Amino acid sequence: MKAFEKNIRKVEPYVPGEQPQRKVMKLNTNENPYPPAPNVAKVLRGMDTDAFRRYPDPACSGLVKELAEFYGVAEDQVFVGVGSDDVLAMCFLTFFNSEKPILFPDITYSFYKVWADLYRIPYRCPELDENFRLVKEDYFQENGGIIFPNPNAPTAIYESLDTVEEIIRRNQDVIVIVDEAYVDFAGRSALELIDRYDNLIVVQTFSKARSMAGMRIGYAISNPLLIRYLNDAKYSFNSYTMNQTSLICGVEALKDRAYFEECIRKLIETRTWTAGELRKLGFQMTDSGANFLFITHQEYDAQELFEALKAHDIYVRHWNSKRIEQYLRVTIGTREEMEAFVAFLKDYMKK
Amino acid sequence: MKAFEKNIRKVEPYVPGEQPQRKVMKLNTNENPYPPAPNVAKVLRGMDTDAFRRYPDPACSGLVKELAEFYGVAEDQVFVGVGSDDVLAMCFLTFFNSEKPILFPDITYSFYKVWADLYRIPYRCPELDENFRLVKEDYFQENGGIIFPNPNAPTAIYESLDTVEEIIRRNQDVIVIVDEAYVDFAGRSALELIDRYDNLIVVQTFSKARSMAGMRIGYAISNPLLIRYLNDAKYSFNSYTMNQTSLICGVEALKDRAYFEECIRKLIETRTWTAGELRKLGFQMTDSGANFLFITHQEYDAQELFEALKAHDIYVRHWNSKRIEQYLRVTIGTREEMEAFVAFLKDYMKK
Repeated sequence: MKAFEKNIRKVEPYVPGEQPQRKVMKLNTNENPYPPAPNVAKVLRGMDTDAFRRYPDPACSGLVKELAEFYGVAEDQVFVGVGSDDVLAMCFLTFFNSEKPILFPDITYSFYKVWADLYRIPYRCPELDENFRLVKEDYFQENGGIIFPNPNAPTAIYESLDTVEEIIRRNQDVIVIVDEAYVDFAGRSALELIDRYDNLIVVQTFSKARSMAGMRIGYAISNPLLIRYLNDAKYSFNSYTMNQTSLICGVEALKDRAYFEECIRKLIETRTWTAGELRKLGFQMTDSGANFLFITHQEYDAQELFEALKAHDIYVRHWNSKRIEQYLRVTIGTREEMEAFVAFLKDYMKK
Repeated sequence: MKAFEKNIRKVEPYVPGEQPQRKVMKLNTNENPYPPAPNVAKVLRGMDTDAFRRYPDPACSGLVKELAEFYGVAEDQVFVGVGSDDVLAMCFLTFFNSEKPILFPDITYSFYKVWADLYRIPYRCPELDENFRLVKEDYFQENGGIIFPNPNAPTAIYESLDTVEEIIRRNQDVIVIVDEAYVDFAGRSALELIDRYDNLIVVQTFSKARSMAGMRIGYAISNPLLIRYLNDAKYSFNSYTMNQTSLICGVEALKDRAYFEECIRKLIETRTWTAGELRKLGFQMTDSGANFLFITHQEYDAQELFEALKAHDIYVRHWNSKRIEQYLRVTIGTREEMEAFVAFLKDYMKK
């Protein structure tokens, strides 16, 4: 090993999810089956590309304004970043500087652990119960901050706002981040609580319900004080994170509320249909509040099923991790895709 | 102060450069006066926006391939990020983990200090000499890593590749990062040294010579080992940093080598003309290897001149910092813009 290697920060090498080149049914990364709002294409084609020579607006004013309007908050309550991963990482860096461990569930979004390791933030991971439900009392102990997704991933479970509120209320000396990447497919958002708790940050994304994973837009909504701290950290890190096309397309996606709601409605309808069909085939699953199902079958090994699906060009997600190794996470695609998925399973189970 | 505030990371609140809303002559952020390569617009308009629902390619393969080809290196020698600020911040996080201080010049890009503070990296800042030249011997002391821009900013001075090489050669136990945001306006790049020194990382950007500040594309070129460490850190931080439009437009900008070279030629011509005119007016300046001039005048106070220019809707850059408070940094615009700038000065000096 070279001398200079000893000072290099080593992280667990992460292998990004499979992005097969040939045409497959891609139910493995929780992407939306529907395209972005129609005007996104229009506004992109009308862009003045000569202006690319200029830096983008570092304050992302247009997008911040549109988000504030959409959610009925003030503009100084909104922070935007390069996907919710960027926003969340910036939150870890900014808000989790205690010597005490931060808390997040044992089964949850895998990046929390990675960011904590990267920034050397101590953490503890209370176990979800045997039904993968959050045990709120586990979050009433002393801690350096709390983060959890609601709905949780990959379990798909949405905890009621009462549970969320109790965790926030019992932890007013630390920052509580509710990561709501999937909340549009579930129910009430913790945004309702923003005015009541000044330790609360809600993070959402354009990657799921808004069909814009490819444009990398995430945002945090909180009170002006915490948003200012986030912006200070961002400006000191990289003032110009959001490129001009993201800023323009993001605004356009927000403007079309009817399209947004229609896509969600269709997706939930397909989710309900798919869940019903899978239950008929003997699958068990959590109640999904997300754009995916978390399924298991007593008679079929998840890893084997995963491989069989893949051999048939149907990509879903499977983890060889404690407690969830017999589960598959299946993204809800179009009705046609889900019909093909179910048809394959019927066929597979006949053998 | 709320209890939760004590664990919030405080950073020096950075105020982004002025982005005036009305039409002004903007010579304050070193943007390119020419638009991006013509095909950038074409490829953007032809994009399949329905694909925005998908995550972008996390490996940025297309852009990496095109960069590798352009610079004659292997694909595993290239890392891309959201502007060179993102690439550099990732380099600080990944490579500067020694207890020993990293070294960078006292007068240089202001973000180095900010990232070091943010990541709690110790640092020392050897002084440039009285002509703002790098004193290479200052970099022969024990250290935890080295970074400097070449050409340096805001001084515009390009140090010869011999000087750069000597610093790299004398520091083979640490990582040396040469930040070449402006090198296309100067001369030989340290890329020539990549194969000879495995402790070298060269960082460049699309924001200056490629007229794409608004698209946020930066890159690092090094050996496969260091690029792998960078990618590991990036994948663990945010796998999908580059959005689909950046990836597509970046490739297109690289393909048009003739346009790139023509823009540089025109800019250098205008720089030479402007420098000559300013010297006639009694300005002194460093030898510029960048797309800006770093100028001072014995009879005119820089701050006052800055204000006078601004009142006339000409924006340049001025810092109230030790040693450079009598200097202005003036971005090279089009020939027409520089003529107007010189005309204003002539007029101002007559009064």
